[in-house]
Amino acid sequence: MTTTPSPVRITATEAPGQPERTPQLAALYRGFESESMVPLWTEIGELMPTTPVSKALPHLWRWRNLLPMAEQAGQLVPVGRGGERRAIALANPGLGGQPFATPMLWAAIQYLNPLEDAPVHRHTQHAFRFVVEGEGVWTVVNGDPVAMRRGDFLPQAGWHWHGHHNRSNQPMAWIDGLDIPFQYHADATFFEYGTDEVETREAPARSNAERLWGHPGLRPLTHLVPTPATPLLAYRWEHTDRALADQIALEAEGYPATIEPGHAAVRYTNPTTGGDVLPTIRTEFHRLAPGTQTAARQEVGSSVFQVFNGTGEASVGQQHWNVERGDLFVVPSWVPLTLASENGLDLFRFSDAPIVERLHLDRSHAEGTSV
Amino acid sequence: MTTTPSPVRITATEAPGQPERTPQLAALYRGFESESMVPLWTEIGELMPTTPVSKALPHLWRWRNLLPMAEQAGQLVPVGRGGERRAIALANPGLGGQPFATPMLWAAIQYLNPLEDAPVHRHTQHAFRFVVEGEGVWTVVNGDPVAMRRGDFLPQAGWHWHGHHNRSNQPMAWIDGLDIPFQYHADATFFEYGTDEVETREAPARSNAERLWGHPGLRPLTHLVPTPATPLLAYRWEHTDRALADQIALEAEGYPATIEPGHAAVRYTNPTTGGDVLPTIRTEFHRLAPGTQTAARQEVGSSVFQVFNGTGEASVGQQHWNVERGDLFVVPSWVPLTLASENGLDLFRFSDAPIVERLHLDRSHAEGTSV
Amino acid sequence: MTTTPSPVRITATEAPGQPERTPQLAALYRGFESESMVPLWTEIGELMPTTPVSKALPHLWRWRNLLPMAEQAGQLVPVGRGGERRAIALANPGLGGQPFATPMLWAAIQYLNPLEDAPVHRHTQHAFRFVVEGEGVWTVVNGDPVAMRRGDFLPQAGWHWHGHHNRSNQPMAWIDGLDIPFQYHADATFFEYGTDEVETREAPARSNAERLWGHPGLRPLTHLVPTPATPLLAYRWEHTDRALADQIALEAEGYPATIEPGHAAVRYTNPTTGGDVLPTIRTEFHRLAPGTQTAARQEVGSSVFQVFNGTGEASVGQQHWNVERGDLFVVPSWVPLTLASENGLDLFRFSDAPIVERLHLDRSHAEGTSV
Amino acid sequence: MTTTPSPVRITATEAPGQPERTPQLAALYRGFESESMVPLWTEIGELMPTTPVSKALPHLWRWRNLLPMAEQAGQLVPVGRGGERRAIALANPGLGGQPFATPMLWAAIQYLNPLEDAPVHRHTQHAFRFVVEGEGVWTVVNGDPVAMRRGDFLPQAGWHWHGHHNRSNQPMAWIDGLDIPFQYHADATFFEYGTDEVETREAPARSNAERLWGHPGLRPLTHLVPTPATPLLAYRWEHTDRALADQIALEAEGYPATIEPGHAAVRYTNPTTGGDVLPTIRTEFHRLAPGTQTAARQEVGSSVFQVFNGTGEASVGQQHWNVERGDLFVVPSWVPLTLASENGLDLFRFSDAPIVERLHLDRSHAEGTSV
Repeated sequence: MTTTPSPVRITATEAPGQPERTPQLAALYRGFESESMVPLWTEIGELMPTTPVSKALPHLWRWRNLLPMAEQAGQLVPVGRGGERRAIALANPGLGGQPFATPMLWAAIQYLNPLEDAPVHRHTQHAFRFVVEGEGVWTVVNGDPVAMRRGDFLPQAGWHWHGHHNRSNQPMAWIDGLDIPFQYHADATFFEYGTDEVETREAPARSNAERLWGHPGLRPLTHLVPTPATPLLAYRWEHTDRALADQIALEAEGYPATIEPGHAAVRYTNPTTGGDVLPTIRTEFHRLAPGTQTAARQEVGSSVFQVFNGTGEASVGQQHWNVERGDLFVVPSWVPLTLASENGLDLFRFSDAPIVERLHLDRSHAEGTSV
Repeated sequence: MTTTPSPVRITATEAPGQPERTPQLAALYRGFESESMVPLWTEIGELMPTTPVSKALPHLWRWRNLLPMAEQAGQLVPVGRGGERRAIALANPGLGGQPFATPMLWAAIQYLNPLEDAPVHRHTQHAFRFVVEGEGVWTVVNGDPVAMRRGDFLPQAGWHWHGHHNRSNQPMAWIDGLDIPFQYHADATFFEYGTDEVETREAPARSNAERLWGHPGLRPLTHLVPTPATPLLAYRWEHTDRALADQIALEAEGYPATIEPGHAAVRYTNPTTGGDVLPTIRTEFHRLAPGTQTAARQEVGSSVFQVFNGTGEASVGQQHWNVERGDLFVVPSWVPLTLASENGLDLFRFSDAPIVERLHLDRSHAEGTSV
Repeated sequence: MTTTPSPVRITATEAPGQPERTPQLAALYRGFESESMVPLWTEIGELMPTTPVSKALPHLWRWRNLLPMAEQAGQLVPVGRGGERRAIALANPGLGGQPFATPMLWAAIQYLNPLEDAPVHRHTQHAFRFVVEGEGVWTVVNGDPVAMRRGDFLPQAGWHWHGHHNRSNQPMAWIDGLDIPFQYHADATFFEYGTDEVETREAPARSNAERLWGHPGLRPLTHLVPTPATPLLAYRWEHTDRALADQIALEAEGYPATIEPGHAAVRYTNPTTGGDVLPTIRTEFHRLAPGTQTAARQEVGSSVFQVFNGTGEASVGQQHWNVERGDLFVVPSWVPLTLASENGLDLFRFSDAPIVERLHLDRSHAEGTSV
Repeated sequence: MTTTPSPVRITATEAPGQPERTPQLAALYRGFESESMVPLWTEIGELMPTTPVSKALPHLWRWRNLLPMAEQAGQLVPVGRGGERRAIALANPGLGGQPFATPMLWAAIQYLNPLEDAPVHRHTQHAFRFVVEGEGVWTVVNGDPVAMRRGDFLPQAGWHWHGHHNRSNQPMAWIDGLDIPFQYHADATFFEYGTDEVETREAPARSNAERLWGHPGLRPLTHLVPTPATPLLAYRWEHTDRALADQIALEAEGYPATIEPGHAAVRYTNPTTGGDVLPTIRTEFHRLAPGTQTAARQEVGSSVFQVFNGTGEASVGQQHWNVERGDLFVVPSWVPLTLASENGLDLFRFSDAPIVERLHLDRSHAEGTSV
């Protein structure tokens, strides 16, 4: 992954619409190479397909395999300045060995031993944590300690100082989501070191951010300017769970509250705008009531799901998996997704939809509809 | 550029903050590989640099070399269905041989022989043409024939049908700019074939788009809804030239009209919003009065410049070039740019700034300022 | 208040810059009158003052006087089709006897006897209810029954069907706020009758709107399009109270959470945008900790305050009042307001600030600051 | 128009839904009066009509009557500090003698003798000039002299310094449009005196504003932040005329460019946003080709039209007028308008539509359509 000049690649010669490969043409192509030029007509099939053809593959990582790896790393790899985090990324098998879950998204399991600190730094990459199990860690964001507990979603806007501290005598693992691949492609990343230890070892049940911003529909008059990322640093499981339960109950009462029968869903939002929590990452939580099967749906943009509770089946293109707690899977752009569950299934989801939508590239298609 | 599963790459072992390479660690890394996982701590230096470090290199393509290549292609390569366009892309030497001028932007020279048609198609990629010399081609956009002449800028929003027709008995070359690399990364591209010939051979001096939208500050009441891309299909040289001349004259009269002494500049805008002409591409025209030297400036996001008139010097990072009509050069993200000219210099510029700004990643720094 | 042609009024003759009142001038002024014309130069002093000079006066209505009036109306005036509501408006003494609290805002006390229905209708005027005491009424909005209890704020967007039903064996009074004066000036009002009784007599503790929208930071995926008015139909006192208590507590811990020392405040917001709950009306809740005095502040736009709890002093221009629970007072545009309390004071506030801000007319000045 | 406390007015007693007028009720109503209260049930018919019922009347002012009045004022009334402008307002006969053309809009004829200056001032009211005949005056806006000529539209954003200077040896008259009534209702007006004479007597053909902003689709890089009001200070007749001629010609060629057969129209826009030129005032120009009759159309919000060229018939509600050059007429909110012309008709229009739209109160209905 170094930056050395490389010869151009002129690929297709048998593709439709190609000129006959005469000696003159071969000479022309050599000329192109010497001038750092590549013809469109040989590459158009790959560059401009009829519909999106992602190099990313549908893929499943099993929590029961990930977690032991993280535990071993917890024994062998220290956390500290330089390496910064004991985080292990999901590397999509279609993406050439890069540590990218999808072309735009990073997903990793992070692991912190009892009483460890992950040192403070900040970066332009937007990030979040989602906790599938455990508790005891406080993530300290610009000096505000935020408790992490099962089911909590904790966004972390770019360029905020942050470190993590495990207060408990148990290790804790969670997943990190970031837009590292996108910012890497876009050459937009800045990074700065902070202190080696978190600024405070206080461990309140509610962060200052929640005390200011965690009241439904209420905005502090001290903060009236919209911000690109959410100022609310924790979205607690009790609220998410209740919102989903309400939707399922409303549906049962005949009120249109679910996106399809048995399928409740909420989006985490920035209370200053009503839009996505982070400029580049959308996050949602989905609940399938027992006996639910979703319509097949395909969308421009990629997603990562993590099973939070229950069991079910995920079909992503030609892949079909039985999934359970902690399992993570990738849905590449425009690959149809179907979810089903006999006993009920709760899923956390994140995607690059804000990038797609803000640049007006969004399209989707749901089986049996025109949306 | 095929999509086959590939082993993960775990790179750095001597980087700061790395654990000692024990047999246990080696076994752990093998475990990561078997599970399609990559640790952050080995990759963080490349993925999260202190400031953007683009793989794209500053690079110059000389028009006197490009144009003969295009002319040879005009003799050897037919234009037609399948290959679609006789366009030859600038392949940045830092980008692994891909036909990408920058990580986000495509730039190509396109060439059309007398009386040829480039067949009609449409795609989600946003595009434009800029004409450094010649005339005689009409680009037909959704059935509206738009003349192309030296100095004209012709935006082409995604998913509009378009083909080109050379009405004259002279060949014509121009440059195309597209967001192909970005949409390729984002897996957002759709493509559809249209007719083999353009819908009309009419060749009016003004397109319908210009007749509807080309009047300063006036909007037709038939079109009141903002559109993501500009409905104005041609920005004529006479207007651009006059706007720049006015800025230089105003500056001479003591009125603040230039961005720095001797440096006039306009941005092409969407008259329905006042914003960029295309959702993903910014386009501007810059004029340096004789004897002007710009302050060094660095920005997040990449640009491509083409010299339209005059001569001067471009310094991009450690590269210094004397440039003249038609020359194209790339400024990667965060690499400082300085322009200078003794006799006057006109430059067309396009960049990925709308992507950067809409996702709130914009930063810039100008020598001697805090902006 | 009828619409008959009326002679023009030419007012000032001694104002500065006036021409000498010659017979010729008198004849000219008669000519103006016959042609329905009025010169600017005689009226400019009133029409274009140096700073806003509202005809509305600072005024206080005492709850201990209002409530008995409403109770008498409860005995003498039936509620039903035609009169529609047993609501009695506050008529600012400066506004010529019109039932307008301020030039843009309507404020009324509404009263409903046990088991009464206020019939269903809808209108373009935006409305809300705020409950200073009592409970037992459900307002039914587009068929969704919403409980009304002390401290609750219940917005009611324009053109929603709504009626009220008192389920209890006690009468209930509350205040209504609307933009009737503004829409009356703007000639924008539409009105339509619905059923004589509310659609449902169900009396749930939580409305469907709250079940869908009442979870902090969470948005149902069924409702992703921003709406001009809030879809959340009740903002419960428990949340408002806790948000204010959190601000006061944060301040005590040294964290900047109040708008000035001892002065906590929240704005009710539309969760689909983060902005005001209604397009024309802003609503807030303010808490003064014991011993607090606010800085004098003046703003373009008018406000109505109602004391919810505690006692204090309100100074509005030259008026100074001791206020207590239920008291309502008006702050006209640009008249300085100061609030003070020895024992603590809770106030509900509504204003026409969204009109002022959306039309870019907002200005404010706070004593001792430049804001 | 003074601000003295006034008794409340309780109007209707025979309206539907009214309680019987017993002695007790009369006593209650007297109690309301003593407490500055007014019941809704007596006023609802006027305050909340089924559809807008404006007090403003359709009305026509004939240019052949207005202009002589202005000329007489030119002889009798000096222009100077205090009176500020020799402007005579159109006073809608329905609006109680106030100098308001509609409830939200001011329209006046202004008159300047040879070599006179109208002194410099600024105010929050937004204003424009439209020139139906003559030339020779320069309006100086923030020091920038802007020529005024027949057909030109000259917006004047609030809080910009401005004065007028007649350079010629002929008097000149034009119309002013402002949002004085709205800002008067809203208590939002600030006013400040400037110099007694305009800052410069230069008289260039093009203003600096036009040189910076008058190039179609091009934005100076010195001015990239959107502004609430347009920075372009003159919209010249040559552009307006050509845009309308283009629409008529396009229609003749079968291209959809007119809003209905024979009816071309443009809106003046702010090039920084694509929206209205002023936050509170919309301005348009309409052309009816010979033999055109428009569909009846009604809209929320009021308009003022001035005939610029040609002759025709205007029907506003029950009023039908033959109109010719310079005539001004008012269309109150929701009153149907039809225009017709045998020989062709050009009309300038301004309205309060931005107020209506930004507050989400817009509705319209066109005969034979559902729009």
